[in-house]
Formats: sequence, C-alpha cells, structure tokens
Amino acid sequence: MKGIGTPVLVINFKNYEEVFDSGAVELAKAAQKIQKELDVAIVVCPPNPCLAEVSKHVHVPVFAQHVDLAKPGSSTGAIVPEVVKSIGAKGSLINHSERRLWASEDIKSRVDRLKSIGLISLACAQTPEEVSEIAKFGPEWLAVEPPELIGSGKAVSKVKPQIVTNSVVACRKANPNVKLLCGAGIVTGEDVAAAVKLGAKGVLVASGIVKAKNWIKVIEELAVPLA
Amino acid sequence: MKGIGTPVLVINFKNYEEVFDSGAVELAKAAQKIQKELDVAIVVCPPNPCLAEVSKHVHVPVFAQHVDLAKPGSSTGAIVPEVVKSIGAKGSLINHSERRLWASEDIKSRVDRLKSIGLISLACAQTPEEVSEIAKFGPEWLAVEPPELIGSGKAVSKVKPQIVTNSVVACRKANPNVKLLCGAGIVTGEDVAAAVKLGAKGVLVASGIVKAKNWIKVIEELAVPLA
Amino acid sequence: MKGIGTPVLVINFKNYEEVFDSGAVELAKAAQKIQKELDVAIVVCPPNPCLAEVSKHVHVPVFAQHVDLAKPGSSTGAIVPEVVKSIGAKGSLINHSERRLWASEDIKSRVDRLKSIGLISLACAQTPEEVSEIAKFGPEWLAVEPPELIGSGKAVSKVKPQIVTNSVVACRKANPNVKLLCGAGIVTGEDVAAAVKLGAKGVLVASGIVKAKNWIKVIEELAVPLA
Amino acid sequence: MKGIGTPVLVINFKNYEEVFDSGAVELAKAAQKIQKELDVAIVVCPPNPCLAEVSKHVHVPVFAQHVDLAKPGSSTGAIVPEVVKSIGAKGSLINHSERRLWASEDIKSRVDRLKSIGLISLACAQTPEEVSEIAKFGPEWLAVEPPELIGSGKAVSKVKPQIVTNSVVACRKANPNVKLLCGAGIVTGEDVAAAVKLGAKGVLVASGIVKAKNWIKVIEELAVPLA
Repeated sequence: MKGIGTPVLVINFKNYEEVFDSGAVELAKAAQKIQKELDVAIVVCPPNPCLAEVSKHVHVPVFAQHVDLAKPGSSTGAIVPEVVKSIGAKGSLINHSERRLWASEDIKSRVDRLKSIGLISLACAQTPEEVSEIAKFGPEWLAVEPPELIGSGKAVSKVKPQIVTNSVVACRKANPNVKLLCGAGIVTGEDVAAAVKLGAKGVLVASGIVKAKNWIKVIEELAVPLA
Repeated sequence: MKGIGTPVLVINFKNYEEVFDSGAVELAKAAQKIQKELDVAIVVCPPNPCLAEVSKHVHVPVFAQHVDLAKPGSSTGAIVPEVVKSIGAKGSLINHSERRLWASEDIKSRVDRLKSIGLISLACAQTPEEVSEIAKFGPEWLAVEPPELIGSGKAVSKVKPQIVTNSVVACRKANPNVKLLCGAGIVTGEDVAAAVKLGAKGVLVASGIVKAKNWIKVIEELAVPLA
Repeated sequence: MKGIGTPVLVINFKNYEEVFDSGAVELAKAAQKIQKELDVAIVVCPPNPCLAEVSKHVHVPVFAQHVDLAKPGSSTGAIVPEVVKSIGAKGSLINHSERRLWASEDIKSRVDRLKSIGLISLACAQTPEEVSEIAKFGPEWLAVEPPELIGSGKAVSKVKPQIVTNSVVACRKANPNVKLLCGAGIVTGEDVAAAVKLGAKGVLVASGIVKAKNWIKVIEELAVPLA
Repeated sequence: MKGIGTPVLVINFKNYEEVFDSGAVELAKAAQKIQKELDVAIVVCPPNPCLAEVSKHVHVPVFAQHVDLAKPGSSTGAIVPEVVKSIGAKGSLINHSERRLWASEDIKSRVDRLKSIGLISLACAQTPEEVSEIAKFGPEWLAVEPPELIGSGKAVSKVKPQIVTNSVVACRKANPNVKLLCGAGIVTGEDVAAAVKLGAKGVLVASGIVKAKNWIKVIEELAVPLA
C-alpha cells in the first residue's frame, strides 16, 4: 500500500442513488479490495452524512465532499473540519464545480484550515487559469475538471487533452508542490492512461464508477493504469 | 416505547468536542438507554457527518442538524434529504439559530421537501412572531428558542416563561397541528417540568446535556418530567 | 419602441472594471441610444449597487443580476425583490452560472416571487436538460449558456449550434410560454444573427460588449440583427 | 464636519418600506442636514441596490449593508467591495445579525479585503465574547447588538448596560484601536446619552429612525448627545 501517494484514483460518490442505504459502505469496500490487490492509491468521497460510517468500515482514505469554515462548538448544521477529522476522514474536496465557492478567499481559508489540523485538501478548478490561481493557496492536490464534460462519458484526457497539459504546466509554474489531477468524463482505463501520459498525478471519477453495474470490475480497470 | 410521540426530549449535539471521535455514538446510546428505561420519546441530532453511523447504532430516532434542497445525483457536498432518509434518519432540524435561513421560502421549501419523502421537520423560531409565521408551513414540530438564552444555563421556561406561553398560543392559532417545543438554557429537570407546565410538548437541549459530565444521569433527569 | 419585447439584447455588466465609477450609467446610456435608434428591445443588468442610479438615468429596462428571497423589513444586506422594484428595475437574472443556485426550489421560489410583484425573471441554464427543468417554473425568459464558452469570444451560436437548437426544442416542449435566449461568447452581429436563425428569441451578452472599446458601436452591431 | 470621526451615529436603513422609491435618498438627506447643523459624524447604510444613487446625492459617508468576497470581473450578482468603493461608498457593515457569517474567517476576510482597498469596516457582534473575538481582526468599528433587543424599542444602553460595559472592556483588551459602538432598541436621545456614558463611541440605529414619522426631528434628537 502506498498510503495516499500518487498516482491516485479519487472516487466522488456525489449523492447518487446508487450509494443510498448501505451503498456508500459497499462502494468503499470495493475500492478497498482493489487498493489491496493492485497496491494503488485510492481515495473515496462518500456523501457527507456517511463520512463517519464509511471511515469505520474501510482503510482506504475517506474525504469529505465539502467542508464549512465554522468552528467546533455552537455551529449546528455545519460540516466542521475538526469533526470530519475526529471521525477518521483524511481530507476534503474543496470548490467542486457542484459546490463552487464564490471567492478565492473562501478556497484559501479552507486549504489553510484543513492544513492546520492535518487534513488534506483536494481543490477543484474548471480551467488552467483557475489552476494557476488556486495552486498558489497550496492544496496538496488540485483537480482540473471542465464542467461541460462532467458526467458526459467523454474523457477530458481524450477529448480535451490540451486542458490537462496546460493545467499541468500552469500548476507546476504556480506551485510545484501541488499535484495536478484531472477529471470529467473518465470511464475507461484508457482514459486514465491518457491522463497519466499527459502528466496528471491521478484522476477524479464519479459517475464513471458509481453508476457502473460492477463496481469492482470498473475500479480495477481504472486503477490498473495507476498501479 | 412511544415512537416519536410527545412530549419529546430532543438532543442537539451541535459540533461540540464532547461528541468528537466515538462521542456521538456514545451519547446516542446514553439517550437510548434512558428512552428504554423511562419509555419517553427522545430524538438525537448528531453532527451531520455522523448521521449514518449513529443511525446504525441506535434505535432512537436520529435527525439531521440541517438539510440542503439539492437533489440526489450531481450535488456534491450537499446534505440531500433523500440521502439522509436512506441511511436511516427520521427527520431534520430546520432554521436553527446557528443556521438561520434568510427567507421564509427557504424554510417552507424544506418542510415541504421533507414531508414529501416521509421525514419529520423540527423547525426553529426565535420569537412568538416567528412561531406564527413558520407554523403556517406545517412542520411537525416547532421549537422556540430565544437566542440570547442558548447556552446560557438560564432556562427559557424559568426566566422568560411569557415567551413560551405566547408561543404556545401563537402556534395553536396559526396551525393547531404543529407541536410547540421550547429550548435555550435548559439544564435541569425542573426547567423541563416548567416548560411542560407552560404548554410545551417537549424541549430542545444542547449544551445542558452534551457538556454534562454524566450523560446518562442528566438525560434521565431531563426525561423524567416527560415520562 | 417595443417595450421588453423580443427579440431582445440583454447586456450583463457583471462587475467588470469598465463599469466602475460612472461606467454603469454610461453603458446604460449607450444602450438607450441604440434602443431608440433601432427600435430594438434592450435590457441592462448593472452591478446590484448601481441599480437605483442606473434606473434613474435611463428608460431602457434595468434588471438586477441576482435577488435574494428575504422579505422587506429586517433583512439587512439582502437584495430584496420589492426594493429592486421600488427603485425602478423591471426584473432580475436568476441562477446565472456565476451565481448558481444549488436547488431547483431556489430557482422556482425566485420566479414565483418576482412574478407575484410584477417583475420579470430571466433564468439561466447551462444545458438543454436544465432548460427543460427550469422552463417548467415559468420564467418569462430563459437563457442557455454553456459555461465553458462564457467570456471565450467563441459564440455558442457558431461553435455549438446544437445546444441552442436543442434548447429551443426543449423549452418549447416544457413550456411554450417561456422565451429561450442564448449566450456565451457572443461578440459579433453575425453571432447574434446565427442565434436568431437557430430559434433564439434574443441573446445575453457580457464581456463582448462591456469590454469593447466603443460601446455604442458594438451595441449597434449586435442589435441590428434583432431590429 | 468631523468626517467619520467619533462619536458616530450610524443609520441602518435595512430594507424597510419607508425607504422604498426615493425614500433612501430622502432619509440620507435628512441625515446630511443634521450632520451639517450639529457638526456630528453620521453614516448612512441604505439598501445595497441604492448605494450608488445615495452616494451621488449626499456628502455623509455611505456604507454598504453587506459585501461579498467575490472579485471584480466575472462575478455576476455579487456585491464586490471594489465596485462599492468605485461608486462612492466609504465602508460596509459586516456580520449584521440579519446577515450573520458562519465562521470567523468569513469576517476576517472581509475586514482584510475592505482595509486593503481603503474602505472602513463596521463589524457586528451579538455578545461581549464575540466582541473579543472579532476585535482581533481589526475592524475600524465594532458594534455590539443583543439580537433580542433589535427593533424592540428597549435600548441596550438602558435595559442591558452591562453588555455595553463588558463589550467596551473586552474590545479595549482585545484591540485598543477598535472603536466600540452599540445598538439595538435605541429610540431616544436619552438612550444615546446612556450609551456614550457607558463608553460607547457611537450608536447603530435602524427602526428607531427609519420608522419615525419625522426623520429630521428624530435624527436631531439622537445626534445631539453625540455633538
């Protein structure tokens, strides 16, 4: 096991019906099975209400899908980073295109807060320009995802390779410590291999895995090029 | 067991450090123990990241502390009511004073959405005037909590009984199907008994229980007047 | 003058530096000049802090860029629809891709609220699928804007005509009373003409106009195909 | 004229119907009249859609009721600090109890941003404890307002003088450069005099002025103790 090394396969469960009920735990277990078999880094991002439960059931790193900035204590309803950590999660997505933050300060504040308590930030960007801006805040990982390809089944690494290449360059220039991932439309092992060839340190996948009929099979297919 | 009957003791865990790690499950188990012993209705509201885990461990009804309106599917980061239901929770707080919604439409939309999928709404109000307005939206429960008494240790039912009485009247007039609870500053069984005497159908308690040294003892004390 | 008829040219000023200081009023006056000369429908959407001022200076219809749901009265900081109306504005953008609302209820509530006080809704969608969903809420206008083309200088009507065609069909099917506009990347009169040919009842333009050196000239160019 | 010196009378127009139409400008002019006559510092906070218009009509300093953190440019719908400055406003309320920010980072980010562009921050707190916390962020002014007294007609300086005294002490201890104001329920000159006697450097007033029948008369009455 490489810990949370790279290249990494990050699985965003979103709030798909496929992970309702006990689905989130089952999908995380499928990920764990492949992680062990292939010795490849995999991160799972279950719906936030499932964070503690999934963390208890698997050893693969669990990330929140979003965190608020509210403090522990009197902050009813907030997703507090310290709570997220205490129940075993290892990090959080930030600024996913379905949970865009309206200001760069909102992203920076979250990266700083997570870092200060030992959690990992996986920030999201929609364009190479945003990669440049957000990389400066120093998240451990930064995923570029063109929104029009999300859920499309057309992989960014195949149909818009220039966006990945430009993002890799922009990221290295802005902050060489940040690892650039890519996402959107990734459904096959070939898509993943193409992403790695373009310089990405991993991929962020949602519907391509969550909506597949055989979770173990598709995770394996996507993980092989990263092993 | 009365199910979620009334009078009811609702415990809001907020994001207090006392419920970090396995604390949320332990506190829920303490609540369950007293529920069984006294045959009194108790609801627990753990931090949202603990919802699935707590629901798996206890039979007392579990409520979310807040829900978003986003739909199942591509709604990364949102607390989706359908997810909350699928993992075993029975309802949600709405409009808590630490998560105030800025418009009455935002409250009504959540009550409607929860009702449409069979979840229970526990809306919060700060004044008798707000009780009148929100009761019209038809939440199952409505808790009046003067914000200045929250966490104060001075019980609304003792130091501002008029607010409870006026809220009971306002609620009955606006919508007799809504059950009026009260909260803020409640720490003793006497405070609970006073609330019931004023016409409240239950109490909403947070720090008075969560920050107590002996959870079982304090829950018992507060539950006895409701049994 | 056609009032707010169609086809319409809607100019979103965003918060570009070009409309700082007295820029918002000047741009609105340029729009008014062309509106009079060509007898074409034009709507201006200045930054929200400029709404009252711009409304006082021009006769072209003024729209807010966003409205909150908060009520008149004790709602410090909110953009209240009734205030927007009282100072002379005629409607509002809703759900612009830079101010996405997270749930369809949030869009529907705003359409209903604006309609109830006689203001016009111009809702935004990113895809034909979203057009189908949002059209059912009955906004007067609905603009489809693929986010990846916004500010790109590559017109949706030229590089992705299928999106416009599909949106026109989707809109008609979902709610024939809703007028479908399109936007993103529109910078020339040819782009506008292409949009109209595809069935759009108007266009939503931002940087293509706001960042142009000669406002009057570019507005005229874009308005001619609509006259 | 003392510029924005202290003691200061800050008038929050909220979104009361009394300032609909041309009401915001008229109320600002009434404030200006008294400012000139008594040579006392007065700040007006009109509804955000009226910011540019009010700024053009009066010389009294104009503050926004709330600002977002979004940057100039592609930030449709946001209240951008740089826009607020460009149209002549001098500062902004932050964290008013009707527009509470959920995290201290959200307050600090706004204070920093406003300061960086030469705008004045008037942050709000609900308790002496919050005064201690927020004062450290260095807003020019900090107003303590117990929420239960807002709009009550019972002045904080009369019915809860201890809150003002404790806040003055907490503020001085946390950051002696921050000027402590108080608000909530202030309706008479006596209320203002009491606030000053308790050590406040000014008052924040809303309904007490906005809902008065004779604006000039009530502003004069409240301003006299500050002259």
